[in-house]
Amino acid sequence: MGQIADLPEPPYTAVIFSSVRTEGDHGYAVMAARMQALAAEQLGYLGYESAREDGLGITVSYWVDDAAARAWKQVSEHAIAQQRGREVWYADYQVRVATVQRSYGP
Amino acid sequence: MGQIADLPEPPYTAVIFSSVRTEGDHGYAVMAARMQALAAEQLGYLGYESAREDGLGITVSYWVDDAAARAWKQVSEHAIAQQRGREVWYADYQVRVATVQRSYGP
Repeated sequence: MGQIADLPEPPYTAVIFSSVRTEGDHGYAVMAARMQALAAEQLGYLGYESAREDGLGITVSYWVDDAAARAWKQVSEHAIAQQRGREVWYADYQVRVATVQRSYGP
Repeated sequence: MGQIADLPEPPYTAVIFSSVRTEGDHGYAVMAARMQALAAEQLGYLGYESAREDGLGITVSYWVDDAAARAWKQVSEHAIAQQRGREVWYADYQVRVATVQRSYGP
């Protein structure tokens, strides 16, 4: 069961990763679980939300600031996954890095 | 098939709507399609991405600026849907309004 990330008050940084998969798994599921676990170990990590439906995947990772998000992009194991993502797993993707200004619930 | 939104260069505004549904449809699917179409008619609308998996839904709507995102929140038919969302459709949700600073693809 997916969960809504429990985050502090804004501002913080959201990295919106939108993607369309290629056919077949090719080690994707194992990598995705590993990257989620690895992200959670990084300094400045706040939370993670992910869903895929009808071919479109949206993963949002949340970070204390832009520097923490940039640092995660540079983590070597993550960089290898990005490379393999471009070559094998993703037909298309877009990364959008954003500063969350306000947040509200029910 | 879901699609990655085709957007202009940043900056622009992203509204990240994360939600957990209640059981049953209760008119949800019709409303969701109607809201997506209505959003696309608004001034300042840029695009829309949505996926739900394992109970967690993530919908990101993109707007030219914060004022356009705020105006969409106030559109009367949307406001009625928000009210019914709180009462019927959503067990939980969180809205995060963010300024996209940079974006990159393959």
